[in-house]
Amino acid sequence: MQPALQSPNSPAMRVEHDLLGEREVPADAYYGIHTLRAVENFPITGTRVSVYPELVAALACVKQAAAMANRDLELLADGKAAAIVAACEEIRAGRLHEQFVVDVIQGGAGTSTNMNANEVVANRALELLGHAKGEYPALHPLEDVNAGQSTNDVYPTAVKIALWFAAQGLLAAMAVLRDAFADKAAEFADVLKMGRTQLQDAVPMTLGQEFAAFAVMLEEDRSRLDEACALIREINLGGTAIGTGLNAHPAYAATACAHLGAITGIPLEVAGDLVEATQDAGAFVQLSGVLKRIAVKLSKTCNDLRLLSSGPRTGLGEINLPAVQAGSSIMPGKVNPVVPEVVNQIAFEVIGNDLTVTFAAEAGQLQLNAFEPIIAHSLLKSLTHLRAGCLTLAERCVTGITANRDHLAHLVGRSIGLVTALNPHIGYENATSIAQEALTTGVSVHDLVLARGLLTQAQLGEILHPDNLARPHSAAGARH
Amino acid sequence: MQPALQSPNSPAMRVEHDLLGEREVPADAYYGIHTLRAVENFPITGTRVSVYPELVAALACVKQAAAMANRDLELLADGKAAAIVAACEEIRAGRLHEQFVVDVIQGGAGTSTNMNANEVVANRALELLGHAKGEYPALHPLEDVNAGQSTNDVYPTAVKIALWFAAQGLLAAMAVLRDAFADKAAEFADVLKMGRTQLQDAVPMTLGQEFAAFAVMLEEDRSRLDEACALIREINLGGTAIGTGLNAHPAYAATACAHLGAITGIPLEVAGDLVEATQDAGAFVQLSGVLKRIAVKLSKTCNDLRLLSSGPRTGLGEINLPAVQAGSSIMPGKVNPVVPEVVNQIAFEVIGNDLTVTFAAEAGQLQLNAFEPIIAHSLLKSLTHLRAGCLTLAERCVTGITANRDHLAHLVGRSIGLVTALNPHIGYENATSIAQEALTTGVSVHDLVLARGLLTQAQLGEILHPDNLARPHSAAGARH
Amino acid sequence: MQPALQSPNSPAMRVEHDLLGEREVPADAYYGIHTLRAVENFPITGTRVSVYPELVAALACVKQAAAMANRDLELLADGKAAAIVAACEEIRAGRLHEQFVVDVIQGGAGTSTNMNANEVVANRALELLGHAKGEYPALHPLEDVNAGQSTNDVYPTAVKIALWFAAQGLLAAMAVLRDAFADKAAEFADVLKMGRTQLQDAVPMTLGQEFAAFAVMLEEDRSRLDEACALIREINLGGTAIGTGLNAHPAYAATACAHLGAITGIPLEVAGDLVEATQDAGAFVQLSGVLKRIAVKLSKTCNDLRLLSSGPRTGLGEINLPAVQAGSSIMPGKVNPVVPEVVNQIAFEVIGNDLTVTFAAEAGQLQLNAFEPIIAHSLLKSLTHLRAGCLTLAERCVTGITANRDHLAHLVGRSIGLVTALNPHIGYENATSIAQEALTTGVSVHDLVLARGLLTQAQLGEILHPDNLARPHSAAGARH
Amino acid sequence: MQPALQSPNSPAMRVEHDLLGEREVPADAYYGIHTLRAVENFPITGTRVSVYPELVAALACVKQAAAMANRDLELLADGKAAAIVAACEEIRAGRLHEQFVVDVIQGGAGTSTNMNANEVVANRALELLGHAKGEYPALHPLEDVNAGQSTNDVYPTAVKIALWFAAQGLLAAMAVLRDAFADKAAEFADVLKMGRTQLQDAVPMTLGQEFAAFAVMLEEDRSRLDEACALIREINLGGTAIGTGLNAHPAYAATACAHLGAITGIPLEVAGDLVEATQDAGAFVQLSGVLKRIAVKLSKTCNDLRLLSSGPRTGLGEINLPAVQAGSSIMPGKVNPVVPEVVNQIAFEVIGNDLTVTFAAEAGQLQLNAFEPIIAHSLLKSLTHLRAGCLTLAERCVTGITANRDHLAHLVGRSIGLVTALNPHIGYENATSIAQEALTTGVSVHDLVLARGLLTQAQLGEILHPDNLARPHSAAGARH
Repeated sequence: MQPALQSPNSPAMRVEHDLLGEREVPADAYYGIHTLRAVENFPITGTRVSVYPELVAALACVKQAAAMANRDLELLADGKAAAIVAACEEIRAGRLHEQFVVDVIQGGAGTSTNMNANEVVANRALELLGHAKGEYPALHPLEDVNAGQSTNDVYPTAVKIALWFAAQGLLAAMAVLRDAFADKAAEFADVLKMGRTQLQDAVPMTLGQEFAAFAVMLEEDRSRLDEACALIREINLGGTAIGTGLNAHPAYAATACAHLGAITGIPLEVAGDLVEATQDAGAFVQLSGVLKRIAVKLSKTCNDLRLLSSGPRTGLGEINLPAVQAGSSIMPGKVNPVVPEVVNQIAFEVIGNDLTVTFAAEAGQLQLNAFEPIIAHSLLKSLTHLRAGCLTLAERCVTGITANRDHLAHLVGRSIGLVTALNPHIGYENATSIAQEALTTGVSVHDLVLARGLLTQAQLGEILHPDNLARPHSAAGARH
Repeated sequence: MQPALQSPNSPAMRVEHDLLGEREVPADAYYGIHTLRAVENFPITGTRVSVYPELVAALACVKQAAAMANRDLELLADGKAAAIVAACEEIRAGRLHEQFVVDVIQGGAGTSTNMNANEVVANRALELLGHAKGEYPALHPLEDVNAGQSTNDVYPTAVKIALWFAAQGLLAAMAVLRDAFADKAAEFADVLKMGRTQLQDAVPMTLGQEFAAFAVMLEEDRSRLDEACALIREINLGGTAIGTGLNAHPAYAATACAHLGAITGIPLEVAGDLVEATQDAGAFVQLSGVLKRIAVKLSKTCNDLRLLSSGPRTGLGEINLPAVQAGSSIMPGKVNPVVPEVVNQIAFEVIGNDLTVTFAAEAGQLQLNAFEPIIAHSLLKSLTHLRAGCLTLAERCVTGITANRDHLAHLVGRSIGLVTALNPHIGYENATSIAQEALTTGVSVHDLVLARGLLTQAQLGEILHPDNLARPHSAAGARH
Repeated sequence: MQPALQSPNSPAMRVEHDLLGEREVPADAYYGIHTLRAVENFPITGTRVSVYPELVAALACVKQAAAMANRDLELLADGKAAAIVAACEEIRAGRLHEQFVVDVIQGGAGTSTNMNANEVVANRALELLGHAKGEYPALHPLEDVNAGQSTNDVYPTAVKIALWFAAQGLLAAMAVLRDAFADKAAEFADVLKMGRTQLQDAVPMTLGQEFAAFAVMLEEDRSRLDEACALIREINLGGTAIGTGLNAHPAYAATACAHLGAITGIPLEVAGDLVEATQDAGAFVQLSGVLKRIAVKLSKTCNDLRLLSSGPRTGLGEINLPAVQAGSSIMPGKVNPVVPEVVNQIAFEVIGNDLTVTFAAEAGQLQLNAFEPIIAHSLLKSLTHLRAGCLTLAERCVTGITANRDHLAHLVGRSIGLVTALNPHIGYENATSIAQEALTTGVSVHDLVLARGLLTQAQLGEILHPDNLARPHSAAGARH
Repeated sequence: MQPALQSPNSPAMRVEHDLLGEREVPADAYYGIHTLRAVENFPITGTRVSVYPELVAALACVKQAAAMANRDLELLADGKAAAIVAACEEIRAGRLHEQFVVDVIQGGAGTSTNMNANEVVANRALELLGHAKGEYPALHPLEDVNAGQSTNDVYPTAVKIALWFAAQGLLAAMAVLRDAFADKAAEFADVLKMGRTQLQDAVPMTLGQEFAAFAVMLEEDRSRLDEACALIREINLGGTAIGTGLNAHPAYAATACAHLGAITGIPLEVAGDLVEATQDAGAFVQLSGVLKRIAVKLSKTCNDLRLLSSGPRTGLGEINLPAVQAGSSIMPGKVNPVVPEVVNQIAFEVIGNDLTVTFAAEAGQLQLNAFEPIIAHSLLKSLTHLRAGCLTLAERCVTGITANRDHLAHLVGRSIGLVTALNPHIGYENATSIAQEALTTGVSVHDLVLARGLLTQAQLGEILHPDNLARPHSAAGARH
């Protein structure tokens, strides 16, 4: 699964060295020896970090902000700083992403990803300065691009920024889905149907109320996601290796954070205790927990859509989902609720990802959590797949849903659950007796109440009027 | 939540000491100072280990086997051994369980539970020898009762024996539930109904086949549980502290295991590598995984029962679960599927317990897993709750299930899914067209096929004969 | 496991009936036939809901508020209302809790717990009115105590109030633990030590910084828990069966909520969409997710404490935990970190409980989540066990921790990690070379730098001064 | 994320139709309209099923076996069968995999993957027969390639075969890792060291014993995986839509299974109850549970490796892991245990995947589990990532591990844990006193025993001889 880093017909190589010795690197590669070793050390998934453009862009944002801060503090020459900034802006614009080649699952707390970024930025900056790639004495990946930084503050900061970007995408997609449900709620506002609790017939409601609840749930979840995003605005850039800020200028953290906030447009804040912030994966756990919550609710919503559309002849048959593909290779004409089903599966994946995040967060030791790469991978997967799921559900399913109005009205009329509305008028015990007789004999609740002389036709008409069934109203004349 | 270990009107105390100093212990307590400190140190749940009689009995089995082995190897005087054996037999018979007072959640790898057992056995043995409780020079909890042992071999061994006992209870309960489903499968063998895939009408089957599948699933799960039990027959008694057997006679492990096997009736085996066995929680993880599997399948079964019995008027209404209590405080006459619902919840608890076991197992370090108490607690909960759930489901639900035969027959007749059976005769594309017209017009598949002249009345009668729909048969005359 | 509901020497019984027929109930029981059936139907855990006094009290709060609202709205006679209120106040004061006998794991969305509450309140109110227990025509459990209510609004409301109460207990316990860590942080403020990342020597810090981080983490988690509590202030009382408010007076929800807020002291709010609120388990999932976060962080903290105190001779040996009990039944003098270990196990349990909550929440269908009892059970367990764990950790461990100051100072002196501080002065590549030579030869970083003439003794003294190592400072004269 | 299915410079299209109407398909595509719609419907992950060559090959195996069975039963003309067989053999040889373009996360129980397979096989077979792609009257994807089949028997069967193939890869990788540990165990057989329980010094052992335990664990886990593989040998091919075998020849299941066994080399069996087998995800849950067990044990092993190699100066420093890359962008010379760390992260991912499988399995309803695609995706990820992790750990870490023999010997000598070996000779209480004095004073256990006259120099020499410390031996002359 290890990606081939050099094509056979490109034999030009340059030599780089690290503490383990020398290695040849493809001459046209922007990454360097540290990246090369990481690629060899982690041949795990075949998926490179470039699969997450948000993360690559976020790394460039951090490198750019750090260079600007170091320049402001006179710790980095203007020329070097300008070249680094220019290189980062190219990456943020989408270029050179294919140079981010380390595996998404990697040891080392993100060091390899940070090294990859340092090397790509340095080599592109070197080019901009008129140097060849690899001429590190002129501009060094570690001493210049990584100046005042450590993987341990760069990587979590970049991950948080990437998560913020991805979360905005999810928030927007959830809004699209919320609106799709709200539109249906309006369309179905007057469709009376039986509500169900514990899968048993309960009391009447409107189909509009049912769909409105889906919309409200989504909006509540959006608020929770927004709150969780607020927690990832707190960064530890400037803490360097363990949060003590060793080798960072006292003004560096605030300066770099200000630049980074301006570059990203995110209202970032320096954490109050950088030692704590460096080792703390709490904000990731919280965000993951909120994504799990969203997944749970989306899955429940899809379960309901599948249940309500079950049939066409032997199910509940209350609503129809739009047909988007043939449902079976053997059963002609069968159409299945494949779009809700795919969203269910995304939800199950997100719930699993949350557990991965939980394990990784718990496994942090002492001054650092070494397992942030799998946390980042899991969260970015969850965010992007949930986003795709929400859009797909909205566009390929919800907007095309229709109601079987006649069938729903018919079911309300013959339901025994109507008897609950008579409770305040004839008492729980009388109502229980009516309900049991209706179930046994098949005679309607309406007729049984009349036959027993418990209420008049007029009273019944008033109590069972649709306007009174689906919302609270004063049971005028009810006994007590 | 800390249990009061001494009633106010029982001021008689005796003094015991440990490495931390002296403490008063109630004079009538069979436990001693180590237990007392543990009770004070772990005021967590308020639930004492005595809640698991299987575990208390298992500890007594281990202490008895160890004493017999030490006696055989002339490491323990006959008189002491006899007294210890007699005390253990009393505990195995159900006495003195209330003396096992440490919390089910406790630090220390089970040391406190082992200490509790050592002290109760020692003090009861002292009494049997004519001594007062606490006269440890005559018979010592650690030097005699615990001779040749360590918590690290005693506790996992006792836990495995307790799990074995509890698993037998679950296996028996699953057999009861399996039989209840099998009886229903026989009763419903001739009830034709529509099968469903993805909640959409599929093709016909019998209700008997549906219930038979539940029985088969349970029997398969019983086989898996039986296999998992085989893994917990391998014990590390004799490994002492870390599996090297320090302070244990070379013949001790085999001798003690033989005695323990005879006492418990379980075909126990000494692990091949005691160092590995001492630190390995793999068998617990495997057992927990199998319990999770059982939970998943039971939950799916209960979901099906709730779905099939949904209604009474607006659901699938295929079967009726027996009413066992009023279902609502507001909706008269409502009856809910509360027994399947409670089994669903047990399943959710078991799945959660499995995660707890997973975390605890992963957290083991070097030569020991310090977190076996929560593993034992979780597994014993899962086993006993699943057992209760299976029995309750069998006795209070499955045996009383009835089928709505007329309704089921009616649904088969009007189903579009019948068209699948025509596939081999009229082709997938023709069948698709028929299905679409049936859905749109409400005309039956049968009539549409006749109208289009695709098959004769006689052919249709043969193909759609109930005997041919629910099992494979040769499509004689089918085109290819 | 089914509790015996009648002692053999108390044969006096009264007869009650429900939709299934008549049953004898012990004459002195405050619960009635619905409770009796539930006890028989759910013989699962042997643990009754009375194990959670917060939940019993919360049910009484709800019943009291409902009665007051019904009285205000002239739907309940003053005399009945007064008796119900008086009965509820007794329960809130801790009386009659033993009458709440249904199992904590039960089918039916909490109906049995609500029925249990209705019956206990009704029978106690009847007594206060001079009636015998069971004279329901005078005051009825369902028609009066449950008036305008449904399990589906009462139970989730009561559960939220119980969770709020329990959460306050946890918040207070976390504050105690936070303060214990903060005190140690002050005590160890001047103790320089090596920080570690990925278990490898990193750069210096103070032990005070390490402990301060634990305190800060706890305070952050307290803030998150406080936010999660805000979400459970939103209740659905007044929604009745499915949130449509059927049978509830239009003013009932607001009136009852106001009373309930006053009774409980919680700033409760009526949910904006009661249909959504009735089916939504999102707030429970969120609270559970926050408890999981707390568990993850507590577990990480305990892992650190165990690691830092490892030894006494072959571990890190940086700090000493107080000895609270003998650690081994075989290894004399061994003392183990049993208090952190028990907190680890609580954390594992809480993480498992979170999964149970997740499954139960996802399984909700249509207008209700039938699985709230296991959600309530899981969350109340998590809250109370975490509370016990925090207090135990603070009182029996953290406050007694001491530092091995000489050992820590010695380790800093011989550490290679000091070389990082030289980075800005001698460059990353020189520093790497020094580090490698120090590791190979055992010569100190200090001496190697001098020997190579890279820095003067005075420069080294300044750079490696303790005041400069554990916090950011300007690397004056550093090259760039 | 939706893959572009047609390059702009290849405008040639053919027209296909399904029950929703007509669509253009790229003329050179081997897939058809069903696949096209699926790609549009599921733009979720951007990862196509072709990422799992085992699954694509397994689908071809099933299609080939089905064609051969249909030919044998005279339900498929020889010419068609031969063409289908030839097309399948090409796919099994690795060709046309890029035509399997549906997303790995998809709704519909695998229908889209089966449709994709049907279409690719059909179009390649058409070519082989001299027809153009899309000339389905000559050979039809559903009526011929899918004859006698349903997604519901084809897909789970193919998934099981793919899992079997992938599991063989993992078994082989685990054997490599086992051997690496076993080699180290032999190399370190004579290196005495202190064992630890609960991170506290326990009693002596050899480093060889420690590494042997890792090897034994892996071998045990291999046995468990082998057993789980046995469960996925049971297939439901021939059950068609819901296991009743509708439209399948009575001899089809046995015939197809025999062919499939021969083709794959796997000893496949037809399930005893096809209705049960069609809906049952139990074997997947079991396999996933075993993978979780492997992950838990691997993670524990990596935790131990990281702990034992902690340092170089302030950790345990017992072993050295080979350096594979620079460990830090700021700390020169730092080398981190990145290979164990990446394996930890794989383990966390696998544990998360197991939860996804659990959720998906529980969500199955009635006659089918619609969520098998996410189950397949999760399991194939777990198997392939674990395989990569085992190989990487073996090759890049374990084989290069060295021991710090002098340091280990030194630690044993000064350890207090040696006192345990004196237990049988001087008693637990004397030993406790010695241990406490040793800890307080720093005097060695050896010297304190001599000073107290408890044992002679000769006795001590015998008891503390390395040969006697790390394995059971008779405590000759021990008191009792």
